[in-house]
Amino acid sequence: MDSIMNMLHDICINVRSKVSRISREEAGISLARGAGGDITKKIDKVGEDAALEVVRSYGIGCTVLSEEAGLVYGSKGKRDESTSNDDTAHCIIVLDAIDGTTNAVRGIPFYSCSVAYATSDRLSSITHGAVMDLTSGDIYYAVRGDGAYMNGSRIRVANTSNDKAGYVIGINLSGISIDRLKRMSSILAMTNHIRQFGSNALEMCLLARGLLDAYIDVRGKIRVTDIAAAYLIIVEAGGMVVDEHLN
Amino acid sequence: MDSIMNMLHDICINVRSKVSRISREEAGISLARGAGGDITKKIDKVGEDAALEVVRSYGIGCTVLSEEAGLVYGSKGKRDESTSNDDTAHCIIVLDAIDGTTNAVRGIPFYSCSVAYATSDRLSSITHGAVMDLTSGDIYYAVRGDGAYMNGSRIRVANTSNDKAGYVIGINLSGISIDRLKRMSSILAMTNHIRQFGSNALEMCLLARGLLDAYIDVRGKIRVTDIAAAYLIIVEAGGMVVDEHLN
Repeated sequence: MDSIMNMLHDICINVRSKVSRISREEAGISLARGAGGDITKKIDKVGEDAALEVVRSYGIGCTVLSEEAGLVYGSKGKRDESTSNDDTAHCIIVLDAIDGTTNAVRGIPFYSCSVAYATSDRLSSITHGAVMDLTSGDIYYAVRGDGAYMNGSRIRVANTSNDKAGYVIGINLSGISIDRLKRMSSILAMTNHIRQFGSNALEMCLLARGLLDAYIDVRGKIRVTDIAAAYLIIVEAGGMVVDEHLN
Repeated sequence: MDSIMNMLHDICINVRSKVSRISREEAGISLARGAGGDITKKIDKVGEDAALEVVRSYGIGCTVLSEEAGLVYGSKGKRDESTSNDDTAHCIIVLDAIDGTTNAVRGIPFYSCSVAYATSDRLSSITHGAVMDLTSGDIYYAVRGDGAYMNGSRIRVANTSNDKAGYVIGINLSGISIDRLKRMSSILAMTNHIRQFGSNALEMCLLARGLLDAYIDVRGKIRVTDIAAAYLIIVEAGGMVVDEHLN
């Protein structure tokens, strides 16, 4: 494991450790609205602080783009790029400390920490990604060009067959408009096995493992912080990620 | 725990033990079409055999109504009511040994064993129900009039608030017709948190635990073997189960 992946791994471990210490009641306390537009819950803040603590301890001068705080510059968490080292000055850490906050607060054991490392502000510049299942501690990760892994074992997307009725398709329908829902109905009618677990990043990892055959989100609301790490994991697992125009 | 609940508990434990010994490849082998209309997979057969083994060992003369085999009469598994004891001659065991077969075969850790005991062929005559999460071994159960439990701790449905946007609603959309989907769209648009995990019985137990606020299945396909045990667990947890006419 290289030093960047070590850092991503340590971020996930620290987030899991810190959020495991707060009660469900405390986890669900509402704070202000986060940079991503959703209400930040206490568990989001605790998770994000745990992640930033690790970034600072590594002393690298990355820009952190986070679900809750938005852009945080520099290794000290200050908006001050002078703290950057030369070799990491242009790196970006894309963080969703808690993906699946509602599940975490309700006690549904399906939520994750998602963190990626990129060299510019484009998805294609992501070189490292890690997603940890915060219930089980299972970790999914990928380094560009080196394949995708779960707990040290190589993972690959499923070999799709022609038996469409047997497909298991993850779809994010939460808060979807009726218009978009109608556009989805032919897909929904195609398979007997629709799933929605409530953490985009972790559902994309199930796809990378071959447990889902497709994962679809056409709500028009998905954020780069939700998908940055899982995007690389899917690509390195042999899968494909496209936008709604199939680009 | 009374002797009937002991039997249901033992059925779940034996099912979990036997299915844990077969590989995923073996689990997914297709056998004939079961009584419920779906293709029976090897894991369904192994689970059902494990359940019937326990019923026979208890020597009671129940009719078993099972997802795969349909009606099985008598304590020996023969269609012979002369084997019944007088005090149990009119009992029915309603069994879905593996609810969530697709998940089990794909490796998605959300499938269950569902078993109920009834004194007649009506849902209202169910006196005992048990559902085991076959991944974790968590067991949900209820005896009529004595409340609902998970691993020995009392469970209750959630106190619903007026914050509809905060509701977490489980909906079974698999293979739903476009017409029914349209009728669901206002509900789908109401909440930001839709879930579908892939085991009706276990999702109904999440409702009984207060982790979901509602669980909806309007495909018109649900079978009594899918819901018998969870029906009693929800009712005893303070919840309500209604059909599509709200009866």
